[in-house]
Amino acid sequence: MVRIGVDVGGTGIQVGVLDEQLNIIGRGSIETHTELPFGEQVRRIAECCKNTVASIGLQEKDIASVGVGIPGIADDKTGMIIKCTNMFWKDAPFRKEFVKYLNKPIYIDNDASVAALAENMIGISKGRSSSVLITLGTGIGSGIILDGKIWNGFHGIGGELGHTIMMIGGEPCTCGNRGCLERYCSATAIIRMGREAVKNRPNSLMLEKAGGDPAKITARTVIDSAREKDPAASEVFSRYVGYLAQAVANVVNFLDPEMIVLGGGVSKAGMFLLQPVRDEFPEHVIFRDRPMPSLDLAILGDEAGIVGAAMLS
Amino acid sequence: MVRIGVDVGGTGIQVGVLDEQLNIIGRGSIETHTELPFGEQVRRIAECCKNTVASIGLQEKDIASVGVGIPGIADDKTGMIIKCTNMFWKDAPFRKEFVKYLNKPIYIDNDASVAALAENMIGISKGRSSSVLITLGTGIGSGIILDGKIWNGFHGIGGELGHTIMMIGGEPCTCGNRGCLERYCSATAIIRMGREAVKNRPNSLMLEKAGGDPAKITARTVIDSAREKDPAASEVFSRYVGYLAQAVANVVNFLDPEMIVLGGGVSKAGMFLLQPVRDEFPEHVIFRDRPMPSLDLAILGDEAGIVGAAMLS
Repeated sequence: MVRIGVDVGGTGIQVGVLDEQLNIIGRGSIETHTELPFGEQVRRIAECCKNTVASIGLQEKDIASVGVGIPGIADDKTGMIIKCTNMFWKDAPFRKEFVKYLNKPIYIDNDASVAALAENMIGISKGRSSSVLITLGTGIGSGIILDGKIWNGFHGIGGELGHTIMMIGGEPCTCGNRGCLERYCSATAIIRMGREAVKNRPNSLMLEKAGGDPAKITARTVIDSAREKDPAASEVFSRYVGYLAQAVANVVNFLDPEMIVLGGGVSKAGMFLLQPVRDEFPEHVIFRDRPMPSLDLAILGDEAGIVGAAMLS
Repeated sequence: MVRIGVDVGGTGIQVGVLDEQLNIIGRGSIETHTELPFGEQVRRIAECCKNTVASIGLQEKDIASVGVGIPGIADDKTGMIIKCTNMFWKDAPFRKEFVKYLNKPIYIDNDASVAALAENMIGISKGRSSSVLITLGTGIGSGIILDGKIWNGFHGIGGELGHTIMMIGGEPCTCGNRGCLERYCSATAIIRMGREAVKNRPNSLMLEKAGGDPAKITARTVIDSAREKDPAASEVFSRYVGYLAQAVANVVNFLDPEMIVLGGGVSKAGMFLLQPVRDEFPEHVIFRDRPMPSLDLAILGDEAGIVGAAMLS
């Protein structure tokens, strides 16, 4: 029997077929078409699952379950997607639609939560009893694993570290609040700080790399320039590291999991990012002379989404 | 058989004897004397336990266990108190000393955690599968209950909501960091804001209640003046409510327990505090149109410490 994992994203939908040892033995994908009716979108996902299974010579009867990771929240009891802003889905009966085309047990969960589960089952935090994954992308996602299981909160609205307030009255956030952690620790935050920095530093390498156009500065521009020791970029990067260290310390002070894992696009900076955050976060931990969570980088990359989704049960 | 609960505080130590229905059937107390050698302090606590049991006509053999709540952290496996700043205890072998005088199973935990356990077992959050207690005192304590049990984190350093950072670069904290939640949500924060406010508002009722001396303004002065609609006090109180609402929302966004409970001295303001916080915190929750944790006041008062400690096992 195989398990199917589906990773739903705003631009594409990835499907993976996993064997019983959790190896990916088949992959498929389709483009996201949010303009289609919801039922039609679900039908396309189910067809992609079936086609992917067929492509490796298996049949529908070989499928044990289908797990779906979405950039939003779902009610696993009812199989409803409660809110999934990027996909324009709200109170959408995913399971009910899906089983019309592929009648298997369907599990749905948040994408950061399923990635955290994947890292905890076969990735960097394998075997840890508790871990928190923080994904540093356009926004901040986070997934909490306690006793080896996803913790989304009692009402399913937890695990949103990115929208905890880290700066009272701070930067306005897309969620309607101010000062959310996401405004300081995401790729978007690096970009904002980089673009601000070049206003007074026209000689910065960041601007050179961006062809002189501040609007073309990306998180990568800032990080690469900091690696090359550009002073303005180094200052921005150092501020970012400070913010991220405080975010990590907040997780330690409040929840203290066995391990904290950094994933998402920004984490591709590797040790250049990890080392200074590792060095700094303990300063912000109240019991800083005690053993505390280890901090490491996610290792499953883009596969975490499909692998974690397939593990849902 | 009875269980003994001990609540260790910087000024006094309370002892309670609980029957099997968790009723307090005997009480005792001693003054704290931090100047005594550690072993002597522990001996006095053990004697107080024995005397309290004797005072209700019971004997040592009737004692099933002794639980101790401390304003610090302990390692329940070894029975060591790791750090307890107010008592000047560090790496102190509490269990080893205690059993010299009273040889019973000894359990030790953080005072906010045991209070959270008490509320969750017989108080306002009775029967809730998960809850977080936030105690609003000189500092901020917090206790996390998950699946009916205390969650102190993997390394025992979690549950310190008061030292999560809510204001990057903000007010300096006693812990050595800046912008800790405690600096904005504790009684100390209300006092600081009240004293600042009267500088430019010499006609404030706060100053009148304090006999003209800003140093005599307490949290109660501010709250009572706000109740009487003093404009300066109302502004301070309203700012405080806003900070506390954001702190509550941080707990919702990250952990989403079934219930959040406010305790400690400031919570004695009752509905005057609870209602505006209840009204405001959902604005700061990302999934604010979904069911979310209920917010209520602790009901066990000072007894929570001994009751929760007695429940440790």
